Amino acid sequence: MSHFDDSLKLHAETRGKWSVVSRVPLETKRDLSLAYTPGVARVSEVVAAEPERAYDLTCKGNTVAIVSDGTAVLGLGNIGPEGALPVMEGKAILFKRFADIDGVPIVLRQDSPERLIETIKAISPTFGGINLEDIAAPACFRIERALQDLGIPVFHDDQDGTAVVLLAALLNACRVLGRAPEDLKVVVNGAGAAGTAIARLLRCIGHDPSVCTPVRSIIVCDSRGVISPYRDDLNSEKHEMLSYTNAERRRGKLADVLKDADVFIGVSKGNLLTAEAVSTMAKDSIVFAMANPVPEIMPDEARRGGAIIVGTGRSDYPNQVNNVLAFPGIFRGALDARARRITAGMKLAAAHALANFLEKPTVDRILPEPFEPGIAECVAKAVHDCAIAEGVVRGRASEPPPADDE
Amino acid sequence: MSHFDDSLKLHAETRGKWSVVSRVPLETKRDLSLAYTPGVARVSEVVAAEPERAYDLTCKGNTVAIVSDGTAVLGLGNIGPEGALPVMEGKAILFKRFADIDGVPIVLRQDSPERLIETIKAISPTFGGINLEDIAAPACFRIERALQDLGIPVFHDDQDGTAVVLLAALLNACRVLGRAPEDLKVVVNGAGAAGTAIARLLRCIGHDPSVCTPVRSIIVCDSRGVISPYRDDLNSEKHEMLSYTNAERRRGKLADVLKDADVFIGVSKGNLLTAEAVSTMAKDSIVFAMANPVPEIMPDEARRGGAIIVGTGRSDYPNQVNNVLAFPGIFRGALDARARRITAGMKLAAAHALANFLEKPTVDRILPEPFEPGIAECVAKAVHDCAIAEGVVRGRASEPPPADDE
Repeated sequence: MSHFDDSLKLHAETRGKWSVVSRVPLETKRDLSLAYTPGVARVSEVVAAEPERAYDLTCKGNTVAIVSDGTAVLGLGNIGPEGALPVMEGKAILFKRFADIDGVPIVLRQDSPERLIETIKAISPTFGGINLEDIAAPACFRIERALQDLGIPVFHDDQDGTAVVLLAALLNACRVLGRAPEDLKVVVNGAGAAGTAIARLLRCIGHDPSVCTPVRSIIVCDSRGVISPYRDDLNSEKHEMLSYTNAERRRGKLADVLKDADVFIGVSKGNLLTAEAVSTMAKDSIVFAMANPVPEIMPDEARRGGAIIVGTGRSDYPNQVNNVLAFPGIFRGALDARARRITAGMKLAAAHALANFLEKPTVDRILPEPFEPGIAECVAKAVHDCAIAEGVVRGRASEPPPADDE
Repeated sequence: MSHFDDSLKLHAETRGKWSVVSRVPLETKRDLSLAYTPGVARVSEVVAAEPERAYDLTCKGNTVAIVSDGTAVLGLGNIGPEGALPVMEGKAILFKRFADIDGVPIVLRQDSPERLIETIKAISPTFGGINLEDIAAPACFRIERALQDLGIPVFHDDQDGTAVVLLAALLNACRVLGRAPEDLKVVVNGAGAAGTAIARLLRCIGHDPSVCTPVRSIIVCDSRGVISPYRDDLNSEKHEMLSYTNAERRRGKLADVLKDADVFIGVSKGNLLTAEAVSTMAKDSIVFAMANPVPEIMPDEARRGGAIIVGTGRSDYPNQVNNVLAFPGIFRGALDARARRITAGMKLAAAHALANFLEKPTVDRILPEPFEPGIAECVAKAVHDCAIAEGVVRGRASEPPPADDE
């Protein structure tokens, strides 16, 4: 595909997509004395006395580290930190473009999840939030969990971001088809970072069920088949999954549970689903085939099998399930609220806001396109308000900032 | 001083001085597909196959982390990582302003030098270089030393940067006064990061002595007096200092060794030197009183004591010994050469280039002012050429970049 070559050419010409600028003038000795020594000493004293004031007086409150160890980069696998850098740089400029957040790519050479956790803790005073990216499962679960009490939002986009956008797509599919999410039979194929997070979010795990309508029937498959209590090869994450999926205790292969299912969600690999398999699903089925760049099934094939709404991860088909619809607004809202973490409630709020951004979703437009203006603002407001309502926000500094610029 | 208040006001208005920008367009779906997925996957593959190509295809080669644990911030002491952040941000924008380097402030919460070393190693794949800043002695020595084999330049500006600018000032003082550096009797007051690095660089420690003229007589004092073999309270750094200072094995207090000395270099604290003490020095003495914001002796007082050339760290007096004259050019040259480290030779080359930047130094102008155009370029060229000559550079990627933009 030519955009691969064009992308390489673009990167070679620019030698990096990401850059730094000063937001203050630096043209005179006086400028220097205000931005740096000796004037900055006063700012440091104030922040040292009350570290919370870093949010008023430094870049911390608008800065998010995009952290990867390069163990699960796109579909490329464990390609190491340098290989991950072009992706993290790209993510950093998306943060800027869509939510005016200063993203900082940070790739780590790390030999264990524990070391990675320690490193992120160590660098955390610099940042208003941490976006984990392209870290392999199951380590990514442990890492994200271990960092939830850091006092700043820590969010693994491959898990949480994907789940939020998928849920928004599913909510709008239900609006289009006049169905209720709780009545759907859902099959998730793929039990890695995204599949696990999707299953959890669809079940509203970790959140007050009164504010959402959990999908009641979810079955998750991995490459060996249905995640069921009859298997003896489940890691602890998959074992835990039994507490919120497969209530019917079914066993077998993907094909077995796909029969009569309403929704297929693929976060696995390309070309593993046929039109024939889709035709065994319930009438007017919904197919999200999100493997990249080759989906589990191409949209035309899925339709041939009877699917009525089809989404993929690709921008060249309708209904792209694209994380860029969620993460900029989620972090914008969390930073604006000075949230201490991103809760399940905030993720659900983001999904509902993203779904409702479209007044009238249709079969071929269940999600907005990334460049439609106002998406991040809409998601940010919902996330911000939820954080305030849940009370998961940092205390403000006691002293108001000396200049009133709000 | 009003610039302290003005600095606080500036910081409150801007909420940080540092920001991020995209260097590629992000306005269309195609832009997204080139800067991010799916196109970026090709770039990641290329870099993963040959990590050195990160220098051609990502921001790595122009990006320097400005790392502090906040243990020795300006004159404020151990004020913690958040307190250090305004300073690191300031340094980051100075890197941009003076050498077009993308500086990234990184403040660390770290409980031991070993952990700090591990964290810097972990984040190092992201960066083309590491500028250590405001880390307390003696830990800073161990930390800088432990990171010299990382494959990218690691430079502690409070040590190395200060030493380079001071040496440039001393070289020009010699040009003005018609003296030879090697004949000077030098007393350094302060045995922390800066004092130790100055003593080492003036003695050309770690470098082929044929390319420089080491000052032969250096005596260093700390707050307890002369660093001498008769003391039993020396830490290992100070003990090692005996191998290249105080060859005469003198003992006593600062006042004892200041008598008949040609040069006083203060990197200690304010107001500890009197005009009377200066008057005991040799005729036409040279005084660098670099404590900030209050020098060891005010310039007028030093002159009253007979000093003929006086430098301070302050911008409101002539002869400001300001690190911004050195670090941007040193890193620019090191990055351009893809140096694996910054050697003593490169530091000496930087000092000579900075000194010679002034065609005719005078008593009141032994160093250029920071905003005189061309300083960083001049220093960068010397550092670059030295790195190439010494062969301390990374191998280039085997495959040339596909676009020829050099």
